[in-house]
Amino acid sequence: QWTLLDWKPRRPDMLADAFGLGKIVQDGLAFRQNFSIRSYEIGVDRTASIETLMNHLQETALNHVKAAGLMDDGFGSTPEMSKRNLIWVVTKMQVFVEKYPSWGDVVQVETWVGSSGKNGMRRDWYVVDYQSGKIVVRATSTWVMMNKNTRKLTKMPDEVRAEIGPYFMDRIALVDEDNRKLPKLNDDTAQYSKKGLAPRWGDLDVNQHVNNVKYIGWILEGVPTSLVESHELTGMTLEYRRECGRDNVLQSLASVSECTDEPPGSDMECVHLLRLEGGDEIVRARTKWQPKHAHAHAHGHTHAHELVH
Amino acid sequence: QWTLLDWKPRRPDMLADAFGLGKIVQDGLAFRQNFSIRSYEIGVDRTASIETLMNHLQETALNHVKAAGLMDDGFGSTPEMSKRNLIWVVTKMQVFVEKYPSWGDVVQVETWVGSSGKNGMRRDWYVVDYQSGKIVVRATSTWVMMNKNTRKLTKMPDEVRAEIGPYFMDRIALVDEDNRKLPKLNDDTAQYSKKGLAPRWGDLDVNQHVNNVKYIGWILEGVPTSLVESHELTGMTLEYRRECGRDNVLQSLASVSECTDEPPGSDMECVHLLRLEGGDEIVRARTKWQPKHAHAHAHGHTHAHELVH
Repeated sequence: QWTLLDWKPRRPDMLADAFGLGKIVQDGLAFRQNFSIRSYEIGVDRTASIETLMNHLQETALNHVKAAGLMDDGFGSTPEMSKRNLIWVVTKMQVFVEKYPSWGDVVQVETWVGSSGKNGMRRDWYVVDYQSGKIVVRATSTWVMMNKNTRKLTKMPDEVRAEIGPYFMDRIALVDEDNRKLPKLNDDTAQYSKKGLAPRWGDLDVNQHVNNVKYIGWILEGVPTSLVESHELTGMTLEYRRECGRDNVLQSLASVSECTDEPPGSDMECVHLLRLEGGDEIVRARTKWQPKHAHAHAHGHTHAHELVH
Repeated sequence: QWTLLDWKPRRPDMLADAFGLGKIVQDGLAFRQNFSIRSYEIGVDRTASIETLMNHLQETALNHVKAAGLMDDGFGSTPEMSKRNLIWVVTKMQVFVEKYPSWGDVVQVETWVGSSGKNGMRRDWYVVDYQSGKIVVRATSTWVMMNKNTRKLTKMPDEVRAEIGPYFMDRIALVDEDNRKLPKLNDDTAQYSKKGLAPRWGDLDVNQHVNNVKYIGWILEGVPTSLVESHELTGMTLEYRRECGRDNVLQSLASVSECTDEPPGSDMECVHLLRLEGGDEIVRARTKWQPKHAHAHAHGHTHAHELVH
């Protein structure tokens, strides 16, 4: 009466990666890792949460650096960066979701880097549904270097460029990159506001700063529950402005509008600001939403979470 | 200059599970799944958080039911349970942690079930460090059946016992099970209290109830930061009393004492109560802590999270 799981590797290259840690592909220039969506990574809609997708992007980025042999001290710093006390900080992140995977689905995340201006690095991702072979998520991000001690942004040293330059690709994950300026909300322009948002112990990283994925939860706290219930997040642009420490208390501001290029009552767009209660900006964001019924999701095989009431 | 990841399967049985979804072992009676600890699963101490470990326990429990061919509608309900609108609810959970795994470590989680009284089920777990082969986490839990519609606890129907009984094992994960009664804290007996704890959207499951792993974050919010910084959680007993919905606001009460059987200034013990601000009890708990230097942790290869400031 016991049946073994019927997952079978579909391609021989899967067998090389029994621990699921991923591997270098594309003639050495990209990195690919599979994730099966776990029970605790799904939310109310029975699909992976946006935080889960972002976590997978973060994980592949770090494993890419590691697999390339460039991981030194720190999370993603190269040896030449470590010598100079430099760390990477993300300044911008864009994610577009075509379809959220469900519990048990396997997704394949592919990531690569490119140049961004004179001193920055671009990191892009595709997430492919393993079953259909279709791209379900596209993402891009911009990174600059910061001195760990002074917390000041710095130019990219030539020695670092020599380390990472050979891995730069011209390939772009997002053709329709959203380059509209993100407006700064204030008490007058925001329609919604939620105060008193404080980091939990588990939101903090080893530097006792809030992990950048955690901001998304606070951004979502700032919009009306009715929107989150009726609509699905399909796109997100985040601009990171300032670090948030463990004693900070935040306020999440939002304004919601219908997309002007859509028939009324369909897609919605929000502008967000996460700021310290003292006023300093932490994150500016824009999110795009579409009615849930608009996506033909297959919710077939899982009615989730009853076991864990 | 590119090096492939040097992870190699250490046992031939690993190859059967390229997607990391686990498999049945122990003559069909137990289920085993490997997890590599990911960058976003670690906390301030650069090791897996207790929530991460609990998530892995939950995931293997569900995959066990699935692999046994007993997963019907819902999260862990068998076909005979579904017919009767029955779901599993956890009433008690005990976890003892010998060593927290670090980022990149692989752990092997093994789980099995047994009987608990006339109408309950016991589920136990071992977590083994794949490198050392040592058990690093032991856990046990007690489950009863609830009618999904009336929310009342019910006896185990004979038909359900016929489904799951053949898989019951006598094996016990925890010999030193903590059976001391959990006292109920109140405003007079609690030394610490934190009010205004509210679920975020991402804390909710498909029933819009708080996932039971999320309570741990709130329990930790109730103790002084100095304790969480100086000590490591080594054991936890949770009694689940009532479901928490998305509009509930909670209060986390705690009292801290030195373990009487230890030299002063070493191990600490806390008693906790999560309750609704209205007064209803959600979770009672006891946690055990030891000074961080007491564990000989290998923090060698990762200085985490700088990339994500």
